[in-house]
Amino acid sequence: MSQQQHLELLSSQKSFGGWLKRYQHSASSTGTDMIFAIYLPPKAEREAVPVLYWLSGLTCNDENFMQKAGAQRMAAELGLAIVCPDTSPRGTDLPQEHDSYDFGSGAGFYVNATQAPWDQHYRMYDYVVEELPTLIEAHFPVTDQRSISGHSMGGHGALICALKNPGRYQSVSAFAPISHPTECPWGQKAFTGYLGEDRESWKQWDACELISQAQEQLPLLVDQGDADNFLAAGQLKPEALQEACDHVSHPIVLRLQPGYDHSYFFIASFIDDHLSHHAKALKLI
Amino acid sequence: MSQQQHLELLSSQKSFGGWLKRYQHSASSTGTDMIFAIYLPPKAEREAVPVLYWLSGLTCNDENFMQKAGAQRMAAELGLAIVCPDTSPRGTDLPQEHDSYDFGSGAGFYVNATQAPWDQHYRMYDYVVEELPTLIEAHFPVTDQRSISGHSMGGHGALICALKNPGRYQSVSAFAPISHPTECPWGQKAFTGYLGEDRESWKQWDACELISQAQEQLPLLVDQGDADNFLAAGQLKPEALQEACDHVSHPIVLRLQPGYDHSYFFIASFIDDHLSHHAKALKLI
Repeated sequence: MSQQQHLELLSSQKSFGGWLKRYQHSASSTGTDMIFAIYLPPKAEREAVPVLYWLSGLTCNDENFMQKAGAQRMAAELGLAIVCPDTSPRGTDLPQEHDSYDFGSGAGFYVNATQAPWDQHYRMYDYVVEELPTLIEAHFPVTDQRSISGHSMGGHGALICALKNPGRYQSVSAFAPISHPTECPWGQKAFTGYLGEDRESWKQWDACELISQAQEQLPLLVDQGDADNFLAAGQLKPEALQEACDHVSHPIVLRLQPGYDHSYFFIASFIDDHLSHHAKALKLI
Repeated sequence: MSQQQHLELLSSQKSFGGWLKRYQHSASSTGTDMIFAIYLPPKAEREAVPVLYWLSGLTCNDENFMQKAGAQRMAAELGLAIVCPDTSPRGTDLPQEHDSYDFGSGAGFYVNATQAPWDQHYRMYDYVVEELPTLIEAHFPVTDQRSISGHSMGGHGALICALKNPGRYQSVSAFAPISHPTECPWGQKAFTGYLGEDRESWKQWDACELISQAQEQLPLLVDQGDADNFLAAGQLKPEALQEACDHVSHPIVLRLQPGYDHSYFFIASFIDDHLSHHAKALKLI
């Protein structure tokens, strides 16, 4: 039996007729315990349902989306499970790991680190793309039909996970993603730390770079608030994503939402549109 | 000009096409600064809209409901403003004020304290019923049509505010209210501290006692999760509220919701039903 078989239930709460559960398990990708949340809609009591993976942003954990996005209402109606992993390994104490909000704990950036000491634990890409879905599909009443979405750092994560794995996800979307991490301060700091100084190696973790090699034309749905202070600060660069898509005729719907900021109030305002986008690809509607 | 004229805007965030704003002002009822949140639906840009007052529970402030209940979606559709006050005065430092979660700060119980030193500041009833609506109706595009709801300690607050003020609210509802505070540990601790040892004086702040004298038969909508640990602990006593209503033929719909706990996941699951209840009374639907 693998370590993955040991799932410790941390909490279970009824929500819109379904159940929100939090689990801890020993993860081989990260060599740490990991916590995730899963929302199982009422339909999952009768048959297997597809899964939306949600990747959260800097400083978040598995709880923020479930508490603040208001997604369970429509997920319950659709018959869609939602899985929220944490945003980094926890429980380690590497040098400077807990010193800043945008690197180390809470800021795994969904890459596989190659630089010591991060390469021993910060393998969130493997965790999110391989280990967690394998675990979920072995233990819960779900199908192998998957979609992926996320916010900010997690929007970056959703985009690269989908672009790097043709056929693995039925659909992808993002809220205010870090679209071009090799060219923004957040991405440059994280990639230098996790991946080292060789900028060529960074390109395999940048959505704008990956678009040009995409073997699958999965339509991108991206929402971005125009009052988002991180947009003004040049951290998000949706225009670069639009340009990269245009360059290779990759389908994208990029919506600039007037007046909205970077918060979960923005996400909640448009989550139903994203759930519809995924539900269509997953043939739920 | 009264002190009420000075409203300091703390934040403004777009939500479902409307705006969630937080303000601080100097409150005469409490003799302290108070913070409240207001959600203004898109319709408020064109015309005055009615207001739902939401009273939160122990340990909460003005933020919990706006972040976790998912009410803005339907409020935006209906054209309903929502106002969330804090749950106690803040910024004071009375003896033992900050020592326990169920008395003092975060636990005002929506009464007017009569015992020193609480009587100087803990006048949340006057604040919620009189001062705050007067302020809201003077400064925002709202009508004088009001509804009130709340959770736990705030469910108690909503019930007593409506029962004590016939004609002031068009409708009332509650989630897992402290229905009979004179007969539960939370209520007895709070009322002893704020109101003193004379239990006769407590009755004017207890929904079960007030029902028998109600001059207006405002239909009560109450949801209660049957897996709520505070129900099992005897803090909520919905059966006493049902009995008090039955005794005088006061209309009540009390719904025991199987599997739900005391959390905001429970509130979010049924908030749309409550918003519909209020919208009908406010003639929005």
